Amino acid sequence: MATAKQFSTVINGVMVDDLFGTIDAVKATPAIAKFNFRIRNQWGTGSQNKSTADKFYGATQDLSHPKAFVLEADEPTILLGKDTAANPVEHLLHALASCLTTSMVYHAAARGIHIQEVESTLEGDIDLHGFLELDKRVRNGYQGIRVNFKVKADVPDEQLEQIVKLGSSHSPVFDSLTNGVPITITTQRK
Amino acid sequence: MATAKQFSTVINGVMVDDLFGTIDAVKATPAIAKFNFRIRNQWGTGSQNKSTADKFYGATQDLSHPKAFVLEADEPTILLGKDTAANPVEHLLHALASCLTTSMVYHAAARGIHIQEVESTLEGDIDLHGFLELDKRVRNGYQGIRVNFKVKADVPDEQLEQIVKLGSSHSPVFDSLTNGVPITITTQRK
Repeated sequence: MATAKQFSTVINGVMVDDLFGTIDAVKATPAIAKFNFRIRNQWGTGSQNKSTADKFYGATQDLSHPKAFVLEADEPTILLGKDTAANPVEHLLHALASCLTTSMVYHAAARGIHIQEVESTLEGDIDLHGFLELDKRVRNGYQGIRVNFKVKADVPDEQLEQIVKLGSSHSPVFDSLTNGVPITITTQRK
Repeated sequence: MATAKQFSTVINGVMVDDLFGTIDAVKATPAIAKFNFRIRNQWGTGSQNKSTADKFYGATQDLSHPKAFVLEADEPTILLGKDTAANPVEHLLHALASCLTTSMVYHAAARGIHIQEVESTLEGDIDLHGFLELDKRVRNGYQGIRVNFKVKADVPDEQLEQIVKLGSSHSPVFDSLTNGVPITITTQRK
């Protein structure tokens, strides 16, 4: 009904009716829940390369973004790059921040919790003794990542932490990063 | 000497002399190797948020990119977003692809291996039964990520795989994603 549609619930910018509709659809047809995300990456030179996110699979069909999103990467000059774009480990922090935030916002909306503002700062430590093969005891990757959320919402203090917990307890990137992902690599001659 | 500088070695777009210079500097002053990368993320509405990568710490000093790099995130409409940017799990694939590629290119350069072209395709599977809390046995994150590299270089087939292995055996993002990272989250009222 057009009239009912006009009054569909939007919380935190999320169409809550559609969110519950998705849940009902997955319950009825579990295959809808299977998604496959893809990118293509092309090397330029040195530390410069770019990825394109265009097509993906979900809800039993091949899907496309309205346009191909291009994501660039470089390294700062101190790491021998040209400093024309964020570097890979900064992109990793963005993936984490954006996923925690969206997961929090969606699951708060599903619970009828209104959020006014969210900001986060993330930082992570890397010791180049790993990457440069100078000390085998030092890992190549992040030794730890610290996230601080600032949330504005009309809720008591204890619920504020619960809202942020909705992010970490549902976020695909948080799970991938804290629990690890099996990655397989194949090689072809171009 | 100015003359020597003109003939400094560049392989794969990487200043190899500077790379070895960095290694020597870290050997002399280990604190140079400690880096701290940072982003700030600001929520817009719904699935839309953006991160800024501006300052970082490394080589015992506070450093800045020449400009602040802004990274956007959204979700496709089928996941209740406005589809204005790549989503968090696509950004994660970009972080992985760019890091594997740069790690490969740098370590090949250090070994005097010339690479002409590199392309990669990445894909990962996510089952929304996790995110939607419909099945506790299903994880929220990627169940697996598959990477295919196409490399053009004048080397025998067996060395082609070794070149790609230089990426995965040194990449900070590959290590972070396959072995996991401790993440701490704190919350403040805004």
